Amino acid sequence: MRRDTLLPRFIVKYKLLITYDGTRYCGWQVQPNATSIQTLIQDALSTALRTKIGAAGSGRTDAGVHASGQCAHFTYEGSIELEKLHHSLNGLLPPDIRILSLEKTDDDFHARYSAKSKVYRYHLNTSKVESPFTRLYAYHLPYPIDLNLLETAAHHFRGERDFASFSNEAHRGSAAHNSIRNLHRLEIHKTKNGLILEFEANGFLYKMVRNITGTMLDVARGKLPLDSIPNIFEAKDRRQAGQAAPPHGLFLERVIY
Amino acid sequence: MRRDTLLPRFIVKYKLLITYDGTRYCGWQVQPNATSIQTLIQDALSTALRTKIGAAGSGRTDAGVHASGQCAHFTYEGSIELEKLHHSLNGLLPPDIRILSLEKTDDDFHARYSAKSKVYRYHLNTSKVESPFTRLYAYHLPYPIDLNLLETAAHHFRGERDFASFSNEAHRGSAAHNSIRNLHRLEIHKTKNGLILEFEANGFLYKMVRNITGTMLDVARGKLPLDSIPNIFEAKDRRQAGQAAPPHGLFLERVIY
Repeated sequence: MRRDTLLPRFIVKYKLLITYDGTRYCGWQVQPNATSIQTLIQDALSTALRTKIGAAGSGRTDAGVHASGQCAHFTYEGSIELEKLHHSLNGLLPPDIRILSLEKTDDDFHARYSAKSKVYRYHLNTSKVESPFTRLYAYHLPYPIDLNLLETAAHHFRGERDFASFSNEAHRGSAAHNSIRNLHRLEIHKTKNGLILEFEANGFLYKMVRNITGTMLDVARGKLPLDSIPNIFEAKDRRQAGQAAPPHGLFLERVIY
Repeated sequence: MRRDTLLPRFIVKYKLLITYDGTRYCGWQVQPNATSIQTLIQDALSTALRTKIGAAGSGRTDAGVHASGQCAHFTYEGSIELEKLHHSLNGLLPPDIRILSLEKTDDDFHARYSAKSKVYRYHLNTSKVESPFTRLYAYHLPYPIDLNLLETAAHHFRGERDFASFSNEAHRGSAAHNSIRNLHRLEIHKTKNGLILEFEANGFLYKMVRNITGTMLDVARGKLPLDSIPNIFEAKDRRQAGQAAPPHGLFLERVIY
């Protein structure tokens, strides 16, 4: 029904599920004088479909941040053999960016605005010596982490809160904005060589996961008292919170629509 | 006791446990005009100890092959602060080569000749689309593998056998040699996105794991009949077996002394 009202009948919208190793890139978003994942995907689509195609992502990921399940959409006027285009795109893209799936979607779908929530994972490696195999995919912390303290710290971040102190939005030159988000899930999973912090929220502010992770780790290693967290929230000032954890431990896990 | 008979009292032998991402290297062994892992470890030891040091490994690994637990030994005349040297070596080495441990060992220890057995793992990724995160650490096979057939094929390789048909020793210019080895363990483990083949033997011939893996995979995908395996063993001719599986799926897991 809505197809007719939104787009001419012959224009169809497509949804891409994308995974990438962010190590070599300036991030998701197109930037001048740097290679972004969005640029390479748009270029691959434009080459394969022989017309200029723009792809809108669910949101940006920073330089060095990875994705297991980024989503994007594009529109195309004409028929597409999905299997063939999927194969062509992976042939055109470098091996550190892969299209996991390509499918038709509703005309009113929008990779960013239709998202109900997003899941991010922050990977920590706590081995004495950093593994060559995870060095690009986990933050190495070769000191003991107090798991109870980390779990208690996590409790302060769950739920609907004003995350202004844990956002670098101002640094991105955004105007006044609403910094209230609902972090409905923050789980700590033990892994063979470390930890994974899993975050799910209805939306994330710029650098929010890395800022929360950095602050939680400061608490867990005794650099910051646990009871200072409410004050940091109260201050609504980014300078009050801990240092952002580095980008290479962070994965955009999936976008929920 | 043996220390006195083998080495002057003030010369001490040390054992290194090493992990490396083999992607960038020509392999373990020193080679002209190429960067080997052995070269970098010897250089780091020589820099840290301010004298030329040679390090003998448990055996070579090929270009692109990884190690979770390679072993090597070296001797040094003088006292060493183990913790400090360990730290210095990891500071001098690139991040894709790490010393996991450094300890004093017996004078009669030899990284190669004292080894009782070795464990190798071959990683297979069977996802439809290759993951950017395992592309350098697993062989991607985007077709179904018949696990029963793979398990039945594995049975043909276990035990003490003449592995001449599964060795590239001749290509390495070795003279006549004994190609009988005891492959006392060959296990198939299912993982989230594929399989791991785990091999344990009292010794491995050149490219033996990759040749066995390649042949087993040929059987599992119906390219080679199961009953041809005994004939391949019988022929004692490398050309009868399947193609070697690529190096980047292979890990030297550990050396057992």
